[in-house]
Amino acid sequence: MNHSNFFNAAIIIIGNEILSGRTQDLNSNYLAKRLASEGINLMEVRIIPDDEKIIIQTLNLLRANFSYVFTSGGIGPTHDDITAESVASAFKVPIEVNKQATKVLATNYPNGELDLTPARLRMARIPRGATLIENPISKAPGFRLENVFVLAGIPKIFQAMVDSVIGTIQGGDPLLSISVRVRKIESEIAEDLSDIAKQFKNVSIGSYPFEKNGHLGTNLIAIHRDKKLLKKVKISLERLKL
Amino acid sequence: MNHSNFFNAAIIIIGNEILSGRTQDLNSNYLAKRLASEGINLMEVRIIPDDEKIIIQTLNLLRANFSYVFTSGGIGPTHDDITAESVASAFKVPIEVNKQATKVLATNYPNGELDLTPARLRMARIPRGATLIENPISKAPGFRLENVFVLAGIPKIFQAMVDSVIGTIQGGDPLLSISVRVRKIESEIAEDLSDIAKQFKNVSIGSYPFEKNGHLGTNLIAIHRDKKLLKKVKISLERLKL
Repeated sequence: MNHSNFFNAAIIIIGNEILSGRTQDLNSNYLAKRLASEGINLMEVRIIPDDEKIIIQTLNLLRANFSYVFTSGGIGPTHDDITAESVASAFKVPIEVNKQATKVLATNYPNGELDLTPARLRMARIPRGATLIENPISKAPGFRLENVFVLAGIPKIFQAMVDSVIGTIQGGDPLLSISVRVRKIESEIAEDLSDIAKQFKNVSIGSYPFEKNGHLGTNLIAIHRDKKLLKKVKISLERLKL
Repeated sequence: MNHSNFFNAAIIIIGNEILSGRTQDLNSNYLAKRLASEGINLMEVRIIPDDEKIIIQTLNLLRANFSYVFTSGGIGPTHDDITAESVASAFKVPIEVNKQATKVLATNYPNGELDLTPARLRMARIPRGATLIENPISKAPGFRLENVFVLAGIPKIFQAMVDSVIGTIQGGDPLLSISVRVRKIESEIAEDLSDIAKQFKNVSIGSYPFEKNGHLGTNLIAIHRDKKLLKKVKISLERLKL
Protein backbone atom coordinates (compact mmCIF):
# COMPACT_ATOMS: atom_id res chain seq x y z
CA MET A 1 0.00 0.00 0.00
CA ASN A 2 1.15 3.51 -0.70
CA HIS A 3 0.40 5.78 2.23
CA SER A 4 2.38 8.74 0.91
CA ASN A 5 -0.69 10.93 0.43
CA PHE A 6 -2.07 10.14 3.82
CA PHE A 7 -1.52 11.20 7.38
CA ASN A 8 0.00 8.62 9.65
CA ALA A 9 0.74 8.29 13.33
CA ALA A 10 2.65 6.43 16.02
CA ILE A 11 1.82 5.88 19.68
CA ILE A 12 4.37 5.68 22.50
CA ILE A 13 3.08 4.05 25.67
CA ILE A 14 5.42 4.99 28.51
CA GLY A 15 5.36 2.89 31.66
CA ASN A 16 7.21 0.18 33.55
CA GLU A 17 3.86 -1.05 34.85
CA ILE A 18 2.89 -2.09 31.30
CA LEU A 19 6.22 -3.81 30.57
CA SER A 20 6.09 -5.74 33.85
CA GLY A 21 2.64 -7.04 32.90
CA ARG A 22 0.95 -5.51 35.95
CA THR A 23 -1.17 -3.25 33.79
CA GLN A 24 -2.81 -4.10 30.46
CA ASP A 25 -2.44 -1.26 27.96
CA LEU A 26 -5.90 -0.20 26.78
CA ASN A 27 -4.99 3.26 25.54
CA SER A 28 -3.42 2.30 22.24
CA ASN A 29 -6.53 0.35 21.22
CA TYR A 30 -8.80 3.30 22.06
CA LEU A 31 -6.65 5.72 20.08
CA ALA A 32 -6.16 3.25 17.21
CA LYS A 33 -9.92 3.17 16.63
CA ARG A 34 -10.22 6.94 16.78
CA LEU A 35 -7.33 7.42 14.35
CA ALA A 36 -8.84 4.91 11.91
CA SER A 37 -12.11 6.81 11.85
CA GLU A 38 -10.21 10.04 11.19
CA GLY A 39 -8.46 8.46 8.21
CA ILE A 40 -5.07 8.53 9.93
CA ASN A 41 -2.96 5.40 9.51
CA LEU A 42 -1.55 4.15 12.78
CA MET A 43 1.79 2.68 11.70
CA GLU A 44 3.44 1.72 14.97
CA VAL A 45 2.92 1.41 18.71
CA ARG A 46 5.88 1.23 21.07
CA ILE A 47 5.71 0.42 24.75
CA ILE A 48 8.83 1.68 26.49
CA PRO A 49 10.06 2.07 30.09
CA ASP A 50 10.10 5.24 32.24
CA ASP A 51 13.64 5.98 31.11
CA GLU A 52 14.59 9.47 29.99
CA LYS A 53 17.15 8.43 27.37
CA ILE A 54 14.82 5.90 25.80
CA ILE A 55 11.89 8.35 25.79
CA ILE A 56 14.01 11.03 24.08
CA GLN A 57 15.45 8.65 21.47
CA THR A 58 12.09 7.07 20.67
CA LEU A 59 10.29 10.39 20.47
CA ASN A 60 12.87 12.01 18.21
CA LEU A 61 12.87 9.04 15.86
CA LEU A 62 9.10 8.75 15.60
CA ARG A 63 8.25 12.46 15.39
CA ALA A 64 10.62 12.72 12.41
CA ASN A 65 8.96 9.79 10.65
CA PHE A 66 5.24 10.18 11.25
CA SER A 67 2.68 12.96 10.84
CA TYR A 68 1.59 12.67 14.47
CA VAL A 69 2.99 11.07 17.60
CA PHE A 70 0.92 10.46 20.74
CA THR A 71 2.41 9.57 24.10
CA SER A 72 0.58 8.07 27.05
CA GLY A 73 1.76 8.14 30.65
CA GLY A 74 4.28 9.73 32.96
CA ILE A 75 2.76 13.22 33.41
CA GLY A 76 1.62 12.89 37.04
CA PRO A 77 3.20 14.50 40.11
CA THR A 78 5.58 11.77 41.31
CA HIS A 79 9.30 11.07 40.84
CA ASP A 80 8.65 8.46 38.14
CA ASP A 81 6.68 10.94 36.00
CA ILE A 82 9.42 12.12 33.66
CA THR A 83 7.61 12.43 30.34
CA ALA A 84 7.24 16.24 30.26
CA GLU A 85 10.96 16.78 31.06
CA SER A 86 11.94 14.17 28.49
CA VAL A 87 9.79 15.77 25.78
CA ALA A 88 11.35 19.18 26.54
CA SER A 89 14.82 17.61 26.24
CA ALA A 90 13.88 15.91 22.98
CA PHE A 91 12.80 19.27 21.53
CA LYS A 92 15.73 21.07 23.19
CA VAL A 93 13.40 23.61 24.82
CA PRO A 94 13.25 24.58 28.51
CA ILE A 95 10.51 23.27 30.77
CA GLU A 96 8.79 25.87 32.94
CA VAL A 97 5.82 26.37 35.20
CA ASN A 98 3.07 27.31 32.78
CA LYS A 99 0.75 30.10 33.92
CA GLN A 100 -2.35 28.77 32.23
CA ALA A 101 -1.67 25.26 33.54
CA THR A 102 -1.21 26.65 37.04
CA LYS A 103 -4.59 28.43 36.86
CA VAL A 104 -6.37 25.34 35.59
CA LEU A 105 -4.72 23.14 38.19
CA ALA A 106 -5.65 25.54 40.98
CA THR A 107 -9.36 25.11 40.20
CA ASN A 108 -8.99 21.58 41.54
CA TYR A 109 -8.30 22.69 45.12
CA PRO A 110 -10.39 24.54 47.74
CA ASN A 111 -7.86 27.34 48.26
CA GLY A 112 -6.81 27.62 44.63
CA GLU A 113 -3.20 28.47 43.94
CA LEU A 114 -2.45 28.53 47.69
CA ASP A 115 -2.93 24.75 47.66
CA LEU A 116 -0.39 24.22 44.91
CA THR A 117 2.40 22.40 46.72
CA PRO A 118 5.66 21.84 44.83
CA ALA A 119 4.47 18.31 43.95
CA ARG A 120 1.21 19.62 42.51
CA LEU A 121 3.04 22.37 40.68
CA ARG A 122 5.10 19.67 38.94
CA MET A 123 1.96 18.96 36.92
CA ALA A 124 1.99 22.56 35.64
CA ARG A 125 5.52 22.23 34.27
CA ILE A 126 5.18 22.33 30.50
CA PRO A 127 7.84 22.59 27.78
CA ARG A 128 8.10 26.12 26.38
CA GLY A 129 6.06 26.64 23.22
CA ALA A 130 3.57 23.86 23.95
CA THR A 131 -0.20 24.34 23.90
CA LEU A 132 -2.26 22.72 26.65
CA ILE A 133 -4.63 19.80 26.22
CA GLU A 134 -7.60 19.91 28.55
CA ASN A 135 -8.06 17.30 31.26
CA PRO A 136 -11.73 17.50 32.30
CA ILE A 137 -11.26 14.84 34.98
CA SER A 138 -8.34 15.76 37.22
CA LYS A 139 -7.36 19.10 35.59
CA ALA A 140 -3.60 18.41 35.20
CA PRO A 141 -3.27 19.14 31.48
CA GLY A 142 -1.55 17.32 28.66
CA PHE A 143 0.11 19.31 25.94
CA ARG A 144 0.90 19.49 22.24
CA LEU A 145 4.31 20.48 20.92
CA GLU A 146 4.52 20.58 17.11
CA ASN A 147 3.30 17.14 15.95
CA VAL A 148 3.60 15.50 19.38
CA PHE A 149 0.63 15.03 21.74
CA VAL A 150 1.52 14.26 25.34
CA LEU A 151 -1.40 12.60 27.14
CA ALA A 152 -2.07 11.06 30.55
CA GLY A 153 -1.77 7.31 31.15
CA ILE A 154 -4.93 6.77 33.21
CA PRO A 155 -7.41 5.44 30.63
CA LYS A 156 -10.34 7.71 31.54
CA ILE A 157 -8.16 10.81 31.30
CA PHE A 158 -6.32 9.55 28.22
CA GLN A 159 -9.63 9.01 26.45
CA ALA A 160 -10.95 12.44 27.41
CA MET A 161 -7.76 14.04 26.10
CA VAL A 162 -7.95 12.07 22.85
CA ASP A 163 -11.56 13.16 22.42
CA SER A 164 -10.59 16.79 22.89
CA VAL A 165 -7.72 16.80 20.37
CA ILE A 166 -8.79 14.33 17.71
CA GLY A 167 -11.05 16.83 16.01
CA THR A 168 -8.31 19.47 15.84
CA ILE A 169 -5.86 17.52 13.68
CA GLN A 170 -5.93 17.04 9.97
CA GLY A 171 -6.88 13.56 8.78
CA GLY A 172 -7.82 11.98 5.51
CA ASP A 173 -10.85 10.18 4.16
CA PRO A 174 -11.84 7.77 6.89
CA LEU A 175 -10.83 4.18 6.37
CA LEU A 176 -13.87 2.06 5.61
CA SER A 177 -14.13 -1.67 6.14
CA ILE A 178 -16.36 -4.53 5.10
CA SER A 179 -16.38 -7.95 6.65
CA VAL A 180 -17.49 -11.36 5.44
CA ARG A 181 -17.95 -14.32 7.76
CA VAL A 182 -17.11 -17.68 6.17
CA ARG A 183 -17.79 -21.05 7.80
CA LYS A 184 -14.56 -22.54 6.51
CA ILE A 185 -11.13 -22.59 8.09
CA GLU A 186 -8.38 -20.44 6.69
CA SER A 187 -6.49 -23.16 4.86
CA GLU A 188 -9.62 -24.12 2.85
CA ILE A 189 -9.99 -20.65 1.40
CA ALA A 190 -6.36 -19.52 1.41
CA GLU A 191 -5.70 -20.01 -2.30
CA ASP A 192 -8.88 -18.32 -3.55
CA LEU A 193 -8.36 -15.56 -1.03
CA SER A 194 -4.83 -15.03 -2.26
CA ASP A 195 -6.20 -14.60 -5.81
CA ILE A 196 -8.69 -12.00 -4.58
CA ALA A 197 -5.93 -10.15 -2.70
CA LYS A 198 -3.87 -10.07 -5.91
CA GLN A 199 -6.85 -8.81 -7.90
CA PHE A 200 -7.41 -5.95 -5.42
CA LYS A 201 -3.80 -5.09 -4.68
CA ASN A 202 -4.48 -1.71 -3.10
CA VAL A 203 -7.03 -3.07 -0.65
CA SER A 204 -5.80 -4.42 2.67
CA ILE A 205 -7.53 -7.79 3.10
CA GLY A 206 -7.04 -9.70 6.34
CA SER A 207 -8.29 -13.11 7.43
CA TYR A 208 -8.98 -13.92 11.07
CA PRO A 209 -9.90 -17.42 12.22
CA PHE A 210 -12.64 -17.77 14.83
CA GLU A 211 -14.21 -20.54 16.87
CA LYS A 212 -17.73 -20.17 18.17
CA ASN A 213 -19.80 -22.90 19.82
CA GLY A 214 -17.50 -25.52 18.33
CA HIS A 215 -17.81 -24.10 14.80
CA LEU A 216 -14.61 -23.01 13.08
CA GLY A 217 -14.60 -20.23 10.56
CA THR A 218 -12.82 -17.21 9.22
CA ASN A 219 -13.64 -13.53 9.31
CA LEU A 220 -12.44 -11.69 6.22
CA ILE A 221 -11.98 -7.97 6.54
CA ALA A 222 -11.14 -5.55 3.76
CA ILE A 223 -10.11 -1.95 4.37
CA HIS A 224 -9.98 0.98 1.98
CA ARG A 225 -11.18 4.54 1.63
CA ASP A 226 -13.21 3.84 -1.55
CA LYS A 227 -16.72 2.55 -0.80
CA LYS A 228 -17.38 1.36 -4.36
CA LEU A 229 -14.14 -0.58 -4.51
CA LEU A 230 -14.97 -2.24 -1.18
CA LYS A 231 -18.35 -3.32 -2.57
CA LYS A 232 -16.60 -5.16 -5.39
CA VAL A 233 -14.23 -6.80 -2.93
CA LYS A 234 -17.20 -7.87 -0.82
CA ILE A 235 -18.86 -9.58 -3.77
CA SER A 236 -15.66 -11.51 -4.43
CA LEU A 237 -15.25 -12.48 -0.79
CA GLU A 238 -18.89 -13.63 -0.53
CA ARG A 239 -18.11 -16.26 -3.20
CA LEU A 240 -15.77 -17.96 -0.75
CA LYS A 241 -18.85 -19.03 1.23
CA LEU A 242 -19.92 -21.38 -1.58
CA MET B 1 18.75 0.65 36.96
CA ASN B 2 21.61 -1.39 35.65
CA HIS B 3 20.31 -4.40 33.76
CA SER B 4 23.65 -5.42 32.30
CA ASN B 5 23.85 -8.65 34.30
CA PHE B 6 20.34 -9.65 33.45
CA PHE B 7 18.49 -11.18 30.58
CA ASN B 8 16.14 -8.91 28.73
CA ALA B 9 13.57 -9.24 25.98
CA ALA B 10 11.45 -7.47 23.40
CA ILE B 11 8.09 -8.42 21.90
CA ILE B 12 7.01 -7.70 18.33
CA ILE B 13 3.26 -7.86 17.74
CA ILE B 14 2.67 -8.19 14.01
CA GLY B 15 -0.75 -7.34 12.65
CA ASN B 16 -2.75 -4.69 10.83
CA GLU B 17 -5.80 -5.75 12.84
CA ILE B 18 -4.14 -4.47 16.04
CA LEU B 19 -3.05 -1.16 14.48
CA SER B 20 -6.51 -0.52 13.06
CA GLY B 21 -7.97 -1.00 16.54
CA ARG B 22 -10.17 -3.89 15.50
CA THR B 23 -8.34 -6.28 17.81
CA GLN B 24 -7.03 -5.53 21.30
CA ASP B 25 -3.56 -6.99 21.82
CA LEU B 26 -3.64 -9.32 24.83
CA ASN B 27 -0.54 -11.34 24.00
CA SER B 28 2.09 -8.88 25.15
CA ASN B 29 0.51 -8.62 28.60
CA TYR B 30 0.42 -12.41 28.96
CA LEU B 31 4.05 -12.77 27.94
CA ALA B 32 5.12 -9.73 30.02
CA LYS B 33 3.88 -11.45 33.18
CA ARG B 34 5.59 -14.72 32.31
CA LEU B 35 8.88 -12.97 31.55
CA ALA B 36 8.74 -11.06 34.84
CA SER B 37 8.33 -14.27 36.78
CA GLU B 38 11.31 -15.76 34.93
CA GLY B 39 13.45 -12.77 35.89
CA ILE B 40 13.69 -11.55 32.30
CA ASN B 41 13.30 -7.78 31.84
CA LEU B 42 10.85 -6.90 29.10
CA MET B 43 12.34 -3.70 27.69
CA GLU B 44 10.14 -2.95 24.71
CA VAL B 45 6.98 -3.95 22.86
CA ARG B 46 6.43 -2.91 19.27
CA ILE B 47 3.22 -3.30 17.34
CA ILE B 48 3.94 -3.20 13.61
CA PRO B 49 2.00 -3.84 10.37
CA ASP B 50 2.07 -6.97 8.16
CA ASP B 51 4.83 -5.45 6.06
CA GLU B 52 7.86 -7.50 5.12
CA LYS B 53 10.38 -4.64 5.12
CA ILE B 54 9.23 -3.36 8.50
CA ILE B 55 9.22 -6.87 10.02
CA ILE B 56 12.78 -7.51 8.80
CA GLN B 57 14.12 -4.14 9.99
CA THR B 58 12.44 -4.37 13.38
CA LEU B 59 13.52 -7.95 13.95
CA ASN B 60 17.15 -7.34 13.02
CA LEU B 61 17.35 -4.30 15.26
CA LEU B 62 15.75 -5.93 18.29
CA ARG B 63 17.47 -9.32 18.05
CA ALA B 64 20.83 -7.54 18.08
CA ASN B 65 19.90 -5.53 21.17
CA PHE B 66 18.04 -7.93 23.44
CA SER B 67 18.66 -11.40 24.85
CA TYR B 68 15.35 -12.69 23.49
CA VAL B 69 12.82 -11.50 20.93
CA PHE B 70 9.29 -12.90 20.69
CA THR B 71 7.00 -12.31 17.75
CA SER B 72 3.24 -12.80 17.66
CA GLY B 73 1.11 -13.20 14.56
CA GLY B 74 1.33 -13.83 10.84
CA ILE B 75 2.12 -17.56 10.74
CA GLY B 76 -1.22 -18.85 9.44
CA PRO B 77 -1.97 -20.16 5.94
CA THR B 78 -3.23 -17.04 4.14
CA HIS B 79 -1.63 -14.43 1.89
CA ASP B 80 -1.27 -11.92 4.74
CA ASP B 81 0.74 -14.37 6.86
CA ILE B 82 4.27 -13.30 5.98
CA THR B 83 6.09 -13.61 9.27
CA ALA B 84 7.96 -16.87 8.59
CA GLU B 85 9.26 -15.63 5.20
CA SER B 86 10.24 -12.31 6.75
CA VAL B 87 12.13 -13.99 9.60
CA ALA B 88 13.99 -16.17 7.08
CA SER B 89 14.92 -13.04 5.11
CA ALA B 90 16.06 -11.26 8.28
CA PHE B 91 18.38 -14.18 9.08
CA LYS B 92 19.36 -14.58 5.41
CA VAL B 93 18.45 -18.29 5.44
CA PRO B 94 16.15 -20.12 3.00
CA ILE B 95 12.61 -21.06 3.99
CA GLU B 96 11.60 -24.64 3.22
CA VAL B 97 8.89 -27.19 3.88
CA ASN B 98 9.98 -28.73 7.18
CA LYS B 99 9.54 -32.52 7.44
CA GLN B 100 8.78 -32.57 11.12
CA ALA B 101 6.30 -29.72 10.75
CA THR B 102 4.63 -31.55 7.86
CA LYS B 103 4.20 -34.69 9.98
CA VAL B 104 2.79 -32.77 12.93
CA LEU B 105 0.44 -30.79 10.68
CA ALA B 106 -0.79 -33.99 9.00
CA THR B 107 -2.04 -35.34 12.33
CA ASN B 108 -4.70 -32.64 12.18
CA TYR B 109 -6.46 -34.14 9.15
CA PRO B 110 -8.35 -37.42 8.59
CA ASN B 111 -6.20 -38.55 5.64
CA GLY B 112 -2.93 -37.26 7.05
CA GLU B 113 -0.40 -35.90 4.57
CA LEU B 114 -2.81 -36.56 1.67
CA ASP B 115 -4.95 -33.73 3.05
CA LEU B 116 -2.10 -31.24 3.02
CA THR B 117 -3.15 -28.80 0.32
CA PRO B 118 -0.65 -26.13 -0.76
CA ALA B 119 -2.32 -23.64 1.60
CA ARG B 120 -2.00 -26.00 4.56
CA LEU B 121 1.59 -26.81 3.61
CA ARG B 122 2.36 -23.09 3.88
CA MET B 123 2.14 -23.58 7.64
CA ALA B 124 4.95 -26.18 7.45
CA ARG B 125 7.32 -23.72 5.78
CA ILE B 126 10.01 -22.97 8.35
CA PRO B 127 13.31 -21.09 8.00
CA ARG B 128 16.29 -23.46 7.73
CA GLY B 129 17.99 -24.11 11.06
CA ALA B 130 14.94 -23.31 13.19
CA THR B 131 13.60 -25.65 15.86
CA LEU B 132 9.84 -26.11 16.11
CA ILE B 133 7.63 -24.83 18.92
CA GLU B 134 4.67 -27.07 19.63
CA ASN B 135 1.11 -25.90 18.99
CA PRO B 136 -1.13 -28.22 21.01
CA ILE B 137 -4.29 -26.55 19.71
CA SER B 138 -4.21 -26.38 15.92
CA LYS B 139 -0.86 -28.15 15.33
CA ALA B 140 0.72 -25.56 12.96
CA PRO B 141 3.98 -24.99 14.84
CA GLY B 142 5.88 -21.87 15.80
CA PHE B 143 9.65 -21.91 15.72
CA ARG B 144 12.80 -20.67 17.37
CA LEU B 145 15.79 -19.35 15.41
CA GLU B 146 18.74 -18.34 17.60
CA ASN B 147 17.29 -15.85 20.13
CA VAL B 148 14.05 -15.27 18.21
CA PHE B 149 10.77 -17.04 19.08
CA VAL B 150 8.09 -16.90 16.39
CA LEU B 151 4.65 -17.54 17.87
CA ALA B 152 1.04 -17.53 16.67
CA GLY B 153 -1.21 -14.49 17.07
CA ILE B 154 -4.37 -16.22 18.28
CA PRO B 155 -4.23 -15.72 22.06
CA LYS B 156 -5.01 -19.34 23.06
CA ILE B 157 -2.29 -20.66 20.77
CA PHE B 158 0.15 -17.89 21.65
CA GLN B 159 -0.26 -18.67 25.33
CA ALA B 160 0.23 -22.40 24.82
CA MET B 161 3.40 -21.69 22.83
CA VAL B 162 4.71 -19.32 25.50
CA ASP B 163 4.03 -21.98 28.14
CA SER B 164 5.97 -24.56 26.17
CA VAL B 165 9.08 -22.41 25.60
CA ILE B 166 9.31 -20.24 28.70
CA GLY B 167 10.88 -23.01 30.76
CA THR B 168 13.55 -23.68 28.14
CA ILE B 169 15.21 -20.26 28.20
CA GLN B 170 17.68 -18.91 30.68
CA GLY B 171 16.36 -16.25 33.02
CA GLY B 172 17.55 -14.59 36.19
CA ASP B 173 16.29 -14.35 39.74
CA PRO B 174 12.60 -13.61 39.40
CA LEU B 175 11.55 -10.01 39.92
CA LEU B 176 9.70 -9.65 43.20
CA SER B 177 7.28 -6.89 44.06
CA ILE B 178 5.62 -5.41 47.11
CA SER B 179 2.70 -3.04 47.09
CA VAL B 180 1.36 -0.52 49.54
CA ARG B 181 -2.08 1.05 49.24
CA VAL B 182 -2.26 4.63 50.48
CA ARG B 183 -5.51 6.59 50.87
CA LYS B 184 -3.91 9.81 49.68
CA ILE B 185 -3.63 11.20 46.18
CA GLU B 186 -0.29 11.23 44.41
CA SER B 187 0.48 14.91 44.88
CA GLU B 188 0.11 14.61 48.68
CA ILE B 189 2.83 11.99 48.95
CA ALA B 190 4.97 12.92 45.95
CA GLU B 191 7.75 14.66 47.88
CA ASP B 192 8.18 11.97 50.56
CA LEU B 193 7.95 9.33 47.89
CA SER B 194 10.66 11.03 45.89
CA ASP B 195 12.93 10.91 48.97
CA ILE B 196 12.28 7.18 49.37
CA ALA B 197 13.02 6.62 45.68
CA LYS B 198 16.34 8.46 46.11
CA GLN B 199 17.16 6.42 49.22
CA PHE B 200 16.56 3.14 47.33
CA LYS B 201 18.02 4.12 43.98
CA ASN B 202 18.28 0.57 42.63
CA VAL B 203 14.67 -0.27 43.35
CA SER B 204 12.05 0.56 40.75
CA ILE B 205 9.23 2.32 42.67
CA GLY B 206 6.08 3.26 40.81
CA SER B 207 2.98 5.11 41.96
CA TYR B 208 -0.43 4.45 40.44
CA PRO B 209 -3.49 6.51 41.34
CA PHE B 210 -6.79 4.70 41.85
CA GLU B 211 -10.39 5.60 42.47
CA LYS B 212 -12.68 3.14 44.19
CA ASN B 213 -16.21 3.86 45.41
CA GLY B 214 -15.46 7.56 45.34
CA HIS B 215 -12.26 7.19 47.38
CA LEU B 216 -9.06 8.40 45.78
CA GLY B 217 -5.74 6.84 46.60
CA THR B 218 -2.42 5.65 45.30
CA ASN B 219 -0.95 2.19 44.89
CA LEU B 220 2.79 2.14 45.41
CA ILE B 221 4.67 -0.74 43.88
CA ALA B 222 8.35 -1.54 44.33
CA ILE B 223 10.19 -4.11 42.23
CA HIS B 224 13.53 -5.78 42.84
CA ARG B 225 15.11 -9.23 43.00
CA ASP B 226 16.21 -8.86 46.66
CA LYS B 227 13.48 -9.80 49.14
CA LYS B 228 15.23 -8.23 52.14
CA LEU B 229 15.75 -4.94 50.34
CA LEU B 230 12.07 -4.90 49.34
CA LYS B 231 11.07 -5.38 53.00
CA LYS B 232 12.98 -2.23 53.91
CA VAL B 233 11.32 -0.33 51.08
CA LYS B 234 7.93 -1.56 52.24
CA ILE B 235 8.53 -0.23 55.76
CA SER B 236 9.40 3.17 54.31
CA LEU B 237 6.38 3.21 52.02
CA GLU B 238 4.02 2.20 54.84
CA ARG B 239 5.00 5.45 56.62
CA LEU B 240 3.30 7.40 53.81
CA LYS B 241 -0.04 6.16 55.18
CA LEU B 242 0.40 8.27 58.34
